[in-house]
Parts: sequence; structure tokens; C-alpha cells
Amino acid sequence: MSDPRRELRVALLGQGFMGKAHSNAFAQVSRFFDVPFRLRLSVLCGRDQQALERSAAAWGWEQTATDWRQVVERPDIDLIDIALPNHLHSEAAIAAARAGKIVLCEKPLANTVKEAKAMVEAARNVPTMVWFNYRRVPAIAYAKRLIDEGRVGQVFHYRGTYQQQWGTDTNRPLTWKMDPEQAGHGVVGDLLSHAVDLALYLNGAIEQVTALTRTFAPGRAVEDAVESLATFANGSIGTLEATRFGVGSRNGNSFEVQGAKGMLRFHLEDMNKLEFFDATDGAPLQGVRSLLVTDAQHPYGTNFWRPGHIIGYEHTFIAALADFLFSLSRDEQFHPNFEDGLRVQEVLDAVLQSAHSRRWEGIPT
Amino acid sequence: MSDPRRELRVALLGQGFMGKAHSNAFAQVSRFFDVPFRLRLSVLCGRDQQALERSAAAWGWEQTATDWRQVVERPDIDLIDIALPNHLHSEAAIAAARAGKIVLCEKPLANTVKEAKAMVEAARNVPTMVWFNYRRVPAIAYAKRLIDEGRVGQVFHYRGTYQQQWGTDTNRPLTWKMDPEQAGHGVVGDLLSHAVDLALYLNGAIEQVTALTRTFAPGRAVEDAVESLATFANGSIGTLEATRFGVGSRNGNSFEVQGAKGMLRFHLEDMNKLEFFDATDGAPLQGVRSLLVTDAQHPYGTNFWRPGHIIGYEHTFIAALADFLFSLSRDEQFHPNFEDGLRVQEVLDAVLQSAHSRRWEGIPT
Amino acid sequence: MSDPRRELRVALLGQGFMGKAHSNAFAQVSRFFDVPFRLRLSVLCGRDQQALERSAAAWGWEQTATDWRQVVERPDIDLIDIALPNHLHSEAAIAAARAGKIVLCEKPLANTVKEAKAMVEAARNVPTMVWFNYRRVPAIAYAKRLIDEGRVGQVFHYRGTYQQQWGTDTNRPLTWKMDPEQAGHGVVGDLLSHAVDLALYLNGAIEQVTALTRTFAPGRAVEDAVESLATFANGSIGTLEATRFGVGSRNGNSFEVQGAKGMLRFHLEDMNKLEFFDATDGAPLQGVRSLLVTDAQHPYGTNFWRPGHIIGYEHTFIAALADFLFSLSRDEQFHPNFEDGLRVQEVLDAVLQSAHSRRWEGIPT
Amino acid sequence: MSDPRRELRVALLGQGFMGKAHSNAFAQVSRFFDVPFRLRLSVLCGRDQQALERSAAAWGWEQTATDWRQVVERPDIDLIDIALPNHLHSEAAIAAARAGKIVLCEKPLANTVKEAKAMVEAARNVPTMVWFNYRRVPAIAYAKRLIDEGRVGQVFHYRGTYQQQWGTDTNRPLTWKMDPEQAGHGVVGDLLSHAVDLALYLNGAIEQVTALTRTFAPGRAVEDAVESLATFANGSIGTLEATRFGVGSRNGNSFEVQGAKGMLRFHLEDMNKLEFFDATDGAPLQGVRSLLVTDAQHPYGTNFWRPGHIIGYEHTFIAALADFLFSLSRDEQFHPNFEDGLRVQEVLDAVLQSAHSRRWEGIPT
Repeated sequence: MSDPRRELRVALLGQGFMGKAHSNAFAQVSRFFDVPFRLRLSVLCGRDQQALERSAAAWGWEQTATDWRQVVERPDIDLIDIALPNHLHSEAAIAAARAGKIVLCEKPLANTVKEAKAMVEAARNVPTMVWFNYRRVPAIAYAKRLIDEGRVGQVFHYRGTYQQQWGTDTNRPLTWKMDPEQAGHGVVGDLLSHAVDLALYLNGAIEQVTALTRTFAPGRAVEDAVESLATFANGSIGTLEATRFGVGSRNGNSFEVQGAKGMLRFHLEDMNKLEFFDATDGAPLQGVRSLLVTDAQHPYGTNFWRPGHIIGYEHTFIAALADFLFSLSRDEQFHPNFEDGLRVQEVLDAVLQSAHSRRWEGIPT
Repeated sequence: MSDPRRELRVALLGQGFMGKAHSNAFAQVSRFFDVPFRLRLSVLCGRDQQALERSAAAWGWEQTATDWRQVVERPDIDLIDIALPNHLHSEAAIAAARAGKIVLCEKPLANTVKEAKAMVEAARNVPTMVWFNYRRVPAIAYAKRLIDEGRVGQVFHYRGTYQQQWGTDTNRPLTWKMDPEQAGHGVVGDLLSHAVDLALYLNGAIEQVTALTRTFAPGRAVEDAVESLATFANGSIGTLEATRFGVGSRNGNSFEVQGAKGMLRFHLEDMNKLEFFDATDGAPLQGVRSLLVTDAQHPYGTNFWRPGHIIGYEHTFIAALADFLFSLSRDEQFHPNFEDGLRVQEVLDAVLQSAHSRRWEGIPT
Repeated sequence: MSDPRRELRVALLGQGFMGKAHSNAFAQVSRFFDVPFRLRLSVLCGRDQQALERSAAAWGWEQTATDWRQVVERPDIDLIDIALPNHLHSEAAIAAARAGKIVLCEKPLANTVKEAKAMVEAARNVPTMVWFNYRRVPAIAYAKRLIDEGRVGQVFHYRGTYQQQWGTDTNRPLTWKMDPEQAGHGVVGDLLSHAVDLALYLNGAIEQVTALTRTFAPGRAVEDAVESLATFANGSIGTLEATRFGVGSRNGNSFEVQGAKGMLRFHLEDMNKLEFFDATDGAPLQGVRSLLVTDAQHPYGTNFWRPGHIIGYEHTFIAALADFLFSLSRDEQFHPNFEDGLRVQEVLDAVLQSAHSRRWEGIPT
Repeated sequence: MSDPRRELRVALLGQGFMGKAHSNAFAQVSRFFDVPFRLRLSVLCGRDQQALERSAAAWGWEQTATDWRQVVERPDIDLIDIALPNHLHSEAAIAAARAGKIVLCEKPLANTVKEAKAMVEAARNVPTMVWFNYRRVPAIAYAKRLIDEGRVGQVFHYRGTYQQQWGTDTNRPLTWKMDPEQAGHGVVGDLLSHAVDLALYLNGAIEQVTALTRTFAPGRAVEDAVESLATFANGSIGTLEATRFGVGSRNGNSFEVQGAKGMLRFHLEDMNKLEFFDATDGAPLQGVRSLLVTDAQHPYGTNFWRPGHIIGYEHTFIAALADFLFSLSRDEQFHPNFEDGLRVQEVLDAVLQSAHSRRWEGIPT
């Protein structure tokens, strides 16, 4: 039986933790989604040759390569997926876009607004995606649907927080994430970027922020924690926070939206659940409901397993990739694309600037 | 301003933990409820003279006494409240009833069905109450209301459990609760009685039980744990359990009712909350709701504090007493009365008999 | 048996919700604590004569009065307790202090720092207390003990939030709390004051704040919500928030403290519980523990009921009063006293000023 | 680079929901575990030809087949995995074992003890596995480790429950699970089997049971619910329950173990968490801890993603398969094997017999 679908030849740049998550997504997406392309895992690109061979064999990559600059130029590649350290995102993405490739890029899109703008500019004519994978957590996609359906109503408060605790371990070996040359920043790019993307996705444009950063660990060159206040274009106010000193949280990406008609609350460690408070219920029956977002009527509810059978971290990458491929086949704009990545970057820049200026900073509209 | 309400002269027999809870109820009831009687705290009766004086002073009892047999005969007393060890309930209640007193009695009503029947017989013409105080937890009273309104529908399962962990402490000094002469039994009378009363209150008559008891602590003369299965007249099935070896639970009196239209769940350590699952919600919006049962529209919602301001253990006694006084003034039957206490006793007897016979045992209808 | 304890003759100014909570505390304190004074409930002062008589009868006040200015001068009164609308706190407290009375005052101490300073000045020679009752929630007192024992270690983050949702009900009748003339401010004085007091109690002095206020309801003259960032003298950073538009929360007074050795979290709707994460546990056994703060070794653990038998809102007033009376008898400084109330006021003023200036504002040291 | 590992040629019988879960396990296992065999996905066998082609293409099966009787005889197959309806397990497994194949079989092993015994007998000389996948939930494997380390101590109570709610939907199309010819039984084989396997795994041999079954839905030929009491060889007592009428639960496979030193609790809808109560902590610091079982030191903690990045339902199949392959390469007995499946079957038979006899029934030792 011949497969009439167009083939997409994929090259993945990067073999770290994110490389593994992306490899898995490319390998698994057609098993859970009826995707409109045949994906060919052509090239896995990295620098540690031995690990590279093992990864390529495990995940089914046909070839390996060690120089990403060559890979992005190869004519036998249709799609470049960038999972390199942050400081290389810009250069790699611009090269790939100029070579006419479809470009996928890990978050944060870039280390500065300037870089991000150049990427958007370069990629104006190619399909793009930023791996803000958490938009595809079924519970978060369902939160978005409930908001769009008016179930929350006029929003009063939006609070987004991303807490991890590993920063307190000062014996932990330094990675590129602690190096401002490579990571750009600390927790702002690493974790706050996720919180900001979800805020923009769920609650719309941010107008102004005031913020504070702090490095608790002696000798660290990037910030460990950030606290900020935000005002949104829809009139709501709230907080955006991220920390690597959030003792008690392994992976606490959470948000709370409170509106005239309801409240939604989410925590990544319970990622199959969404808390919903329906303020239109009669007073004695009002209460926070815990929804297990695995039903057939929930987002991605028929793609993975049965109702009540939960999914994990990796499935958010699979679902994001599937959605991207569907958009691609329909010639529709996918979100979050590079422009969405730039929007996040503008907020992060304002946060960092405010931490420096000690004033409220506006975000360009 | 003269008080036109009839005076009720109260004597309380017993000065232990329950005596304190009852004293507090008598002292506080008119502060939260517009009760139709003037309560006069006439006599506190106990055996430890020094403690008795202190308690009487603290709670406002006018007199003290040490011989309950004399107190129940006193013509200047209208209401006898029995908080003596279990083995004295029957004799004291019968004497008080024969003397024409209103009789309130701590749970369990008695140590045997035979005793309980004699008490019911003797008290046929006087108002009675058994202190199954948990019926007056607002969340439980609200559960009952939701069931009566049809919010749970045809019931499939009822599970009642009362778990405490103090039994594992074998250094704990023995009290009368460990003495079968005084307590009658162990956890069956002490904790299972509460679980059975709530089962009868919320789910109706029990038809049959099969049960198992166990004494874990060497040398204890009463049972530490009981497990039983039950069939109910309404067609539902479930479990009734109690244990003093429920490690992890300080005071885990809980139940779960599952029916065609909904589910209700309660745990005494979170006694201001009721969990409710509305199976008539659309599938994607179905979820267990946590109701904070403190609103004006909830039972006792206007008696204590404001919405969101929780109450504690003692308020269940206050509310039970208030309801009893309102029933009394309207000449209505209060529940749980001695007959309700006898119903509980019949189930407890069947449980103990089954643990001995190793067969299903029926409960008289 | 004659009572050798000194008598304290109490007058309570105010008959609203807080009047009820205070009356109950005066009536109940000697039942749960072996207090070193005989309290005499001498005068209840209010303006609604009919309600006043009912309240006085219910709670045992000997006399009633309608002019608080006369009451504070009466020679037969030792202790004045102020539960009047905020704008009267200052005048009443100063008059009482000048008359040599012991002065207790509802929170917030005053409407401005200026008022609060005058109160502190006037009361320099009399014992004082501010009813920041939540310091006496057993779980919060235990949090303080754990912090003092070093169980949290160097603090990184402190977050305090007080959320209620009643502000969304625009049909609700206006009370003095909505009138800036009487209330001074909106949610800042009403709810943020509690959050700030707990922050100062648990985490020490606040150095700077930046804040934002918002009035969501058309026509309201006071702020509905406040968001702020704070830096603490101990080097930690965090947020302080309060809102009457916190949809999903009836009475959500909560905090989170994260330090090198542990994390503590509390929520008033579960006020008998304290969440504790011990970062010194081995990694695989680290987890947030839910402590039921009712044990004999917990604060107030032997005063109320038995382990596992929870207490409610009113008990925080009882325990606060008891602690005050013990301090008084030992001639020790009680906390929170008027100076502590002033400290709170200084933070609230900085918050309001920052909301106006849109800058970081310092708090006097 | 040639792969020195032995090749295992796999045939999977069955293309339903379980076929998908098993296919995924075969496809994914070598990506997360360094497995000692090369798995070759040789044959997928089913009856719906069109779906079969799609599944084979998606999951990488080389060939398809429609007659399982032929497949189990093929010389080019090393391992037969049975995911057929229950009534075919016995015949297929016996045929495969007689043909010398490695045999994996979905749970329950069989429909009767007699069938299970014949399977054990036939497979005495081939490696076997029963897909009681939940033993490989990291949280459950960690519970087992804690029990083995003595962290729970002498066990007093074990309670296992598996609740789903789909049975209440009487419009749901009938599948083979509702047909006693194919399924053998209803909820007993389907869900109670999991609860019993976990009970045996975590708490050891069961000595006696007394049980009750009930069919709530009119016209259903298999039981909807089962309630049972159990006594264990280690002296503990408890309950084993399963229901398809567990309103409020999508996939509520849960257990609770209470012992002298601690308590463990688990719920499948929160499958990355394990609740642990350490009774050796000092009283004021005792509390139920919520452990997120994703750390490097937890079972499977280094195989999947990073600490705090949760896994889902499918990973339990992957981990079970990996463990089986490691056992196979070391020539060790894997558990649960067919003998373990027989042990479960013996308990299920005793439960069903007790429901019929209305007596306690013993389990063979």
C-alpha cells in the first residue's frame, strides 16, 4: 500500500534533554495522530559522536552529523528543528530560514528582542514553530477553550508561576544554563518564558510590568528568581513569577485565572487535571472542581489512551508537533510561531529592564 | 426585660471529655441559636470532687453532685444528660426516664440490644436524644439534603469508615474504653457506632452484614478493628469499617455515597468541606467539587460565623442541642432519639455476631 | 471557694460581626485557658438599642451603653475593647489610653500612619493589643515555631495572599467597609493588613514594596484589589496580594515560605492544617506533608479538644485573648501590640503610596 | 556498527486497546531502557484487516496475520504476546508454550483457576509474563521498596479498590467485556484482578475472603461490582473492592497500607504520586507526605524524563517489558509470571465462590 502523503525530511540540531523529547515526538506523532505527512528522521546533529550514535539508533535517525551549519544548508532536508543552547537559536534559525526550510525552535526563541526580531524577519516566508509545548497540555488547551467559550468571563486576576527547586543545590555541576554567554539569562529565559507564553495565550497582551530579580547562590552569573507584577490589555492584573529556589516544587508551572464567571487553576505536576470553579453555580453548590482532562470531549482526548488513563510530559511535544503538521498541510498559521516567540521575548525584556530601572516598563503593542 | 421562655433545669452526669463538650453546648447554644427555652445549668455530677469544682466554675454549673442516682430523682431537674461510661447508660437513662425527665445520652446508646430496648421502652413517654453529634456537621446535614433532593439518585455504593491511630500506642494508659466491663466493646461501640449512625441517616436501613474483628495489641480485651460488608434496603452495597490502628488518621470519620446522579464524600478532619460530583454535568465538566459548607444557604449557615469562616468539633454539639430544643418546643420527634440509637445497636450486634459466626447476619426490620 | 484572681472589668465598643467574635472570646476564654484574671463583662456599647439588648443577654454583658465616649471615661472599667468602624479606632483608643485603660483594638489599627503613631504615643503606658487574631491560629503559631527552630533555614521567598470573592457581587448592600470616610481604604486595610501582619510576624521586616491597586466595580470608592512585590530585611523576596475579586475563594488567607531547609504553606479555609516540606529529608522521601495541627505538642494543643478534633474561626480570638491576659499578668509585652499595628500601617501606607507613585517605596526602619 | 544483541522476533495477538498499549511498549522500550535484546516487531495478528494494516504501519509491525493459531506455530517467531479476549488466553498461551515460545499474556491470566493451572503447566519450561502493568508504576514499585525496607512495619490494614464509572452508562455499546462467554466474568476479572495482584505484590498471601457481587444494570450478564473482606497471611485485614459503578472515578485504582511504622496510599489518576505517612516522625511533624515519584533515586527515575516531568499510562507497559527482558537475559524468574497470574486467579475464584456460598472461602497455599 503506497503512502500518498508528502514526505518531510527532518534534521534535528541538538542531542541533549530537549533533543530526546523532540526525537520522541518525531518518532511517536504518527502513532497517535493521523498526520498528513510522512516524517523521515533524516539527520540527528550533535557534537558528542558516541552519544550521537546511540541516540540515532534508539530513535531511528538515519544519519548523524556534527556541524549544524552544514546541515541547515542540505538540500535533502525540509525541516530544521533547533534544540541547541539558547545563544545559537538565532543564527541557526536565520540560516535555516534563508535556506527555505521549515523551522522549529526550542524556547525561548532568542536571548534578546533584537535577535528575535531578526529571526521573525528572516523567517517571514517559511512556516515556523516555537516549542512552547505546554500550550498542548490537554488541561491547558481545555482551559483556553473554556475561556474562549466565556466560562471565565471578564478576567480580574491572572497569576502565572514557574517554580523549581534545583537551584538550591550549589553542588550541582554547571551547565550552559548557568552561563550568561550561552543561556542569555537565568530563570527569566528558562522558566519565566513558559509562564509568559501561557499568560499571553490564555489572557492576552500584557501592557506593563514591574519586576525584581535576585541571585541567591554566591557566584552565579545569572538570576535565580524573578518576581513581577503585570497589567493586561483586558483590564486584569496579576503576578508573573519564576524561581529556581522554589523549595517544595520539582516542576511547578502553574497559573490561576479569576473572572466574573469562573476560575481556572493548573499545576504541571498534576498536568492531567484542571481545576475549575463555576461562579454561575448556585452559591451552596459552588466549589472548585477537579477535572481529569482525559475524556473523549477534551482536547487530544481521542488521540492517546482512554478516559482516565493519563499522559505525561512527552505527549505535549507529540501533540504540539501534530498540530503544527495539521496547520502546515492546511497552509494555516500555526501558533506559537516565531512572532509569538517574539511577543514573549518583548515581555521578558521588559521584565529584565524593569528589574534594572526599578520602574514600570511598557511592552510594545 | 423578662424572659417569657420556659426554663429547663439541666443536670449533666459525667465530667470527662464528653462532659466538657456537653457543658460547652449548654453554655453556648443560646448564643448562636434563638432557642425556645431558658437553659439553667443546675447540676454537674461527677466523682472527682476537685476537678468537678473547677469544671462547674468554668462552665457555669450552679451546683455539683457526686451520686448520679440521687440526681436523676431530683424534682428540681427537668433534663438529664448522660455522659457516663457506656455500661451506666442504660441504668441511668431508665431511672431518669422513669422519673419523667427529658433524657439525653451519649453514644453508643447502650452496650447491647437488650439494654437499648429496655431504654427505649422506659423512655417511651419522654423526649430523648442520642448524641450522634456528627449528623449536625453542616457538611453532613447538607449531604443529607442533597440526597433528599435527589442529587445522588439511585445509590449503588455506600462506604463508611472511622479510622483513628492511637491504638498503636501500647504505652497509652488504659481507660474505661479498654475495659469490656465498662465499654462493652472496643472500636465497634466507640467508632463504628458513628459510622453506622451516619449510614442509616444518609442511606437508610441495613439489611445484612458480614464482618471481621481483630485485636492487634497483645493483652487488649476489646477489639481494635472491625471490617464489614453491608447490604442496604435501597439496593446499594458497601463497607463499614472502624479501626484504632488506622495509621495516618487522627480522626478519620469518612463516608462516600455513589449514585446514578452523583457522588458525595466527607472526611471529619476537613469537616467544613463536602465533596460533590455531579454526574449530570456534561462529561468534560464533570469533576469532584470541594464545597466549603459555610454559606448562608447551607445548614446552620447563619448561626455561627460568616461564609468562609469555619467551625470546629464543638459546634456539632451546639447545633445538635439547638435542634433538639426546637423539636421539643414544637412537640416533634427529634432524631436521633433512643429508637434511632437502638437501630444502630442492632447493626453493631449483627456485626459482632457475624464476626463470631463467620456468616452473614440479618438486621431486624 | 473565693477566687483570688484580680477582676478585669471589660467594656466592648461595637456590636457588629467583630463584636460577636470578641464577646465570644471574653465569654469563652476561661473555659479553655486557666487565665490569671476574672473577666467581668461589664458594658456592651453600640447604637442599635434593640440588637444591643439581645446581644448583651446572649453573651452575658451586664450593662449596655450607646455613647462610647462616655464609656471610655468610666472609672469602673479596666479594659476597653474597640470593635468600631476603622475611622473611630484612633479617637477611641487615644481617649481610652489617656483614661489609663488597657486598650484592645480591632485591625487595622488605624487608617493612616499618622493616626497609628498618635495611638502608639498615647498608649505608651498602657497595655495594648491589636486583634490580628490569625497569629493565634495553631497552625500559624506552629509555623512560627518551626521557623524559629531553623526548620525553614535561610528564606528565599515569602508570599502572602488574602483572597475573598464577595466583591464581585455588585448587588450586595454597601456597608461602612465601602465608604472611604469610615474604612479609610478598601481591601488594603481590610485584608492586606492581615497578610502584612503575618509577613512581619513570620518573615520579619519589609524593606521596600512596589504595588498596584485596582477598583473593578463601577462606582466603588475604595480599591478592590492590590498586588505588590516586597523585599525583606532577611534577603528574601516575594509578593503580597489581597483582593475581593478572588473568584473561587471564600476566605483565602494564605502564605508560603520557602527556605534552604524547608517550605511552609497555609490556607485559612483549611486552618487546622499546615503544609511542611522538609528539604533535609533524602530526595526520594521529600514531599509536602499535611500536618493536622491539633496535637498535644502543637500550640494550644491541650487547650481545646483532643488531637484530631478541629477548631474554628472563633478559637483564634479566644487564644489571642488568653495570651494577652497571660502577658498582662506577667507584665510582659504582648504582641501584636499597638507598635506592631503601626508597623503594619507603615507597610500599608507604602503600598498605597507606591500604587500612586508607581515606584518602589521604602518602609521606615 | 553491528548490534551484538540477540534478536527476539515478536508476534502480537490482538489489535484492540491493549494491542495498542503493547505495540507502543515494543516500539518504545529500547528508547528508554538499554535492553539486552533487539526486538523485531514481526507479526501483528487481528481480524479487522483494514484496521490491522493501519496499526501495523503506525507501530512498525513487519507483517500482519489474521489466524492466531497459525502465528503461534511459526518457527520465525520467538515471543508470543497475547492481547486477545480473556476466553482465548488459555488456548493461545498453551499452544504458544507448547511451541516453545516465550509467552506474554494480558491480565487476567484466565477465566478460571482450572484454565490458569493448565497454562502454568504448559508453560513450565518457557519464560512467561502476565501484563499486570501497574506493578511497574514507579510510585507502586517505590511503595514495594519502602515496604521491603521496613518503612511500613507490621501491617494492620490493606485496602485495595478499583473504581470506574462507565458501567452507569447503559447506552454504551456492549463489548466482549460484557459477554460472560468471552470475558468469563465482569468486574472481577477486569478490575478486581488488578487490585488482587497489587495486594499479593505489596502485602503477600491472602488466606480467606468473604465477598458479595452485584449487577446493577438490568440485563447485564456479568457482575458490575464486588465487595470483599480479606485476611492476609501476615496478620493484616482489609477490603478488596471493584466496581464499574464508582461514580466520580474515571480510573480509580487505589490502595492503602497501614502498618506500625507508616502508611502508604496510591491512586492511579495521580499515578506519579505516592502518599507516605512516617509514623516514626515526632508527633507534631507527622503528616501525610505527597511524594512525586520522578526522582533519579526512584524506580525508573533515570529512564524516562527528568525529576518533576511526569509519565503516563503507557510507560507502565514499557517498564514492565524492559524488566521482563532484563530477567530473560539473566535467566531469572520474572514476576508477575504465569504462576503469579494463577495466584491472582485463585483469589478471584474464592471471591466468586464466596459471593455464591455466602461464606468465607480459603485460598490454597
